[in-house]
Amino acid sequence: MKRLISIGLAAALSVAIVHAAEPTPPSPDDIAKQSIETRQGLFKVMSFAMGPVGGMLRNRVPFDAAVAEKSAGRIAELGGILPDLFQNDTRKYTGVKTTALDGIWNSLPDFKIKADELVKAAGELSAAAKTGDKAATLKAAGAVGKACGNCHDSYRVKT
Amino acid sequence: MKRLISIGLAAALSVAIVHAAEPTPPSPDDIAKQSIETRQGLFKVMSFAMGPVGGMLRNRVPFDAAVAEKSAGRIAELGGILPDLFQNDTRKYTGVKTTALDGIWNSLPDFKIKADELVKAAGELSAAAKTGDKAATLKAAGAVGKACGNCHDSYRVKT
Repeated sequence: MKRLISIGLAAALSVAIVHAAEPTPPSPDDIAKQSIETRQGLFKVMSFAMGPVGGMLRNRVPFDAAVAEKSAGRIAELGGILPDLFQNDTRKYTGVKTTALDGIWNSLPDFKIKADELVKAAGELSAAAKTGDKAATLKAAGAVGKACGNCHDSYRVKT
Repeated sequence: MKRLISIGLAAALSVAIVHAAEPTPPSPDDIAKQSIETRQGLFKVMSFAMGPVGGMLRNRVPFDAAVAEKSAGRIAELGGILPDLFQNDTRKYTGVKTTALDGIWNSLPDFKIKADELVKAAGELSAAAKTGDKAATLKAAGAVGKACGNCHDSYRVKT
């Protein structure tokens, strides 16, 4: 799988570079840069997916079970991509600022467990939202936020 | 929904800015910047999700129906997020370089149709991959690539 992921990144890069008859294979630094930027992209999309649910939790937008369910599906899918994006150990590459702590690559199994917990929490949010029950949905939404925080506490630079 | 999306982006931004007792509400430019960067993040993750399938199409990685099915699920979910991320019209903001053509916001319904076609093609890829049939899966994978290209041809700066 790890090899597939590296090839996936390399393929994505080749697409980006393209149009030379024989594209130059990306360097390890190119791949590390691509990895970090893709991870950061994922977290931006994750924030976007969480946005409406966060708004409901803070009472800034009206409760909407269908919107919460859609968000939950997105968060679950994105959470499943997360560990794959960290298979590439980028600790040696310093060309892009990152808030990923080195501990991730010292504890990949635990990192994966935490991502799985997020996916599970998102699944529970989806199930709760399907019932339309506001209290249960918001409780499940809070658990999704907690799953995000659990991983950030261990593996993200404190801001 | 448009209001929800703006609130979602604003909420995501507030989280990013945070820790002031009363966080300053993000400006329209902040929101435009966030929109563009989130869109670009989505496309990076989309490339990553497409990577293994593209590798199989180019015979660079061994065919693996399970990997193709997983990719298809990711592409479908990401494709569903796409139109939401373009609800925010960023034409007036020039602070971040973007390859999104203005035509997107002149033709949002067509843009949405093209994103829906991608989601549909990804669903068909998933169905084909589930059967394990290599030829059918690769054919469906090609159709996913074509759906990407259809949208790029209309709505992305030519590189």
